[in-house]
Amino acid sequence: MPVGTQGTVKGVLPDDVRAAGFNLILGNAYHLHLRPGDDLVAQAGGLHRFSGWQGAMLTDSGGFQVFSLAGLRKITEEGVRFQSHIDGSMHHFTPESVAAIERNLGPDIAMVLDECAPYPCPHDYARDSMRRTTRWAERALADHTAHDSVAAGGWEQALFAIVQGSVYRDLRTESAGELVDLGFPGYAVGGLAVGEEAGQRRECLEWVTELLPLEKPRYLMGVGTPIDILDAVERGVDMFDCVMPTRNARNAQAYTPEGSLNLRNARFRTDFGPIDGECPCPVCARHTRAYVRHLFSAKEMLGPTLVTLHNLWFYAGLMQAIRSALSEDRLPAFARAYRNRYEAADPGCADE
Amino acid sequence: MPVGTQGTVKGVLPDDVRAAGFNLILGNAYHLHLRPGDDLVAQAGGLHRFSGWQGAMLTDSGGFQVFSLAGLRKITEEGVRFQSHIDGSMHHFTPESVAAIERNLGPDIAMVLDECAPYPCPHDYARDSMRRTTRWAERALADHTAHDSVAAGGWEQALFAIVQGSVYRDLRTESAGELVDLGFPGYAVGGLAVGEEAGQRRECLEWVTELLPLEKPRYLMGVGTPIDILDAVERGVDMFDCVMPTRNARNAQAYTPEGSLNLRNARFRTDFGPIDGECPCPVCARHTRAYVRHLFSAKEMLGPTLVTLHNLWFYAGLMQAIRSALSEDRLPAFARAYRNRYEAADPGCADE
Repeated sequence: MPVGTQGTVKGVLPDDVRAAGFNLILGNAYHLHLRPGDDLVAQAGGLHRFSGWQGAMLTDSGGFQVFSLAGLRKITEEGVRFQSHIDGSMHHFTPESVAAIERNLGPDIAMVLDECAPYPCPHDYARDSMRRTTRWAERALADHTAHDSVAAGGWEQALFAIVQGSVYRDLRTESAGELVDLGFPGYAVGGLAVGEEAGQRRECLEWVTELLPLEKPRYLMGVGTPIDILDAVERGVDMFDCVMPTRNARNAQAYTPEGSLNLRNARFRTDFGPIDGECPCPVCARHTRAYVRHLFSAKEMLGPTLVTLHNLWFYAGLMQAIRSALSEDRLPAFARAYRNRYEAADPGCADE
Repeated sequence: MPVGTQGTVKGVLPDDVRAAGFNLILGNAYHLHLRPGDDLVAQAGGLHRFSGWQGAMLTDSGGFQVFSLAGLRKITEEGVRFQSHIDGSMHHFTPESVAAIERNLGPDIAMVLDECAPYPCPHDYARDSMRRTTRWAERALADHTAHDSVAAGGWEQALFAIVQGSVYRDLRTESAGELVDLGFPGYAVGGLAVGEEAGQRRECLEWVTELLPLEKPRYLMGVGTPIDILDAVERGVDMFDCVMPTRNARNAQAYTPEGSLNLRNARFRTDFGPIDGECPCPVCARHTRAYVRHLFSAKEMLGPTLVTLHNLWFYAGLMQAIRSALSEDRLPAFARAYRNRYEAADPGCADE
């Protein structure tokens, strides 16, 4: 899922996101509640119609954003009280109020309010926080069911739970087990990609995914690089969201099968080839690295837009290639070849 | 012509500019000489290929930009010495050096180096400046001819002269007469839309256009609002360039047949209609005023992009309607109806 926090995948038209190959994008309940207001979005007919997106939508609850506001928020059993990052106004999120916001927004998939614990995190904090997140998930599910929550399209809205527990096996096991018992239509793994080592992340994923039902989607939140995604797919993850293809694009970082490039680099000044010679995207069909570098040098809006479009096509192509490899039962060989090529690139290139 | 000063119509893909209905866009020799360098653009195969634009190109000489650098430039008979606005480096433009830059850029239409006199301007300054501009035009034409200047497409590059003379009839008459005698393939009217009254501008245009050959294009530089364009077409002008549809878009100003709207205005918060209900553009097909207002409130890049696209379609539609009215010999009735509707709009709307 490309990330459209404020109701737009930054800098690109929704139809161009579709054309890149995405059918599902992410919005954020926290951001949209504060601005323009979920009541306004409801008046517009829901987030799909408000933003002109002709596909499916998932909204994150905003737990991650609220809990990133260190010093500005207070957690109780009831919920979390916090100050808006926009105007300092006070707000209160509870599992039920977030479910109500998500009914207003009308995504196809809604996420429960969770606490995303920081990293590193002492075991007792992680335990208390995880258990509260589980109790919140139960309350959210009850509220969701009581209101027959529907997506803007008229079908049932799917409410996904979020497994927490930091990097502790006993806590992750407890969290996954209890949430599975509650019976959600899908499960996310939260609290990763927050600073832990890649090895720890892979281990946590293995503990969790083996406990999740095979027939329900598993979603790893906030991940990641192409290699991170391969790592997680090999451990049974189905869905991802990440700002990397779009946020990094705005900083001139373009993805290719041979690693990423920073197109601000002087060596691209007279490089009249496409960003990626194998890429089928409209940017690679029409534009050169030299032109993109010029746009960034001249601080032209089109630079971020072009690299965003290219990166979206790159990530969509990666996910399509992974799906093909899975359906043809050749993921291990695919992943090995992909990693070798991506990581063998000139380090001066991949590390930029 | 939409304006693509630095090799991009700001914030929109070149193919989307084409789709709006434009076949000719403007680049700027001054800006492109400084960054990325016209030699680099030549290496890329010219400005069309460098920027991925699949239509025709005109480059302004940059005279207007150079002469706007008050205090940073010195004019002699030879040319003009000035400091770059980017890094303060010293540069020297002569009619011949600008012609050479424009050979590197390879537009289909190149403009001569001129001095765009300020407004207001004493008669003797305007006279000396206009006469030097005429001598420069003669030198540019000689250089252009001596080098068999071709556009990047391989055909002959058209060099347009620029009529100057401020708001003085004797000077405009002298300028137009001498430039016509030199025999250019097209003529621009410069030094207008620099602060004079609309009535003065219309009068100047009448003096000039009656002296220009009917079979050659007349181009009014830097104009303007929809009404300014109608005024000038009625006085025999064929071509225009203006930053209004794009620059104003980045400030949330959208054009409609009933005047322009500032979409930041609070009254659009819950306006779920399109920017312009009659507009065939992809923005009006998909997005609402409320959504565009939200994008500007949230400082999202897509806001400027959507309004730019809409305004380009609006201006392209205006020019197409003018061409139809002309070819059907009903311009006066068209212009009257257009003005009545555009200017009768709620003043709280048109003046925003």
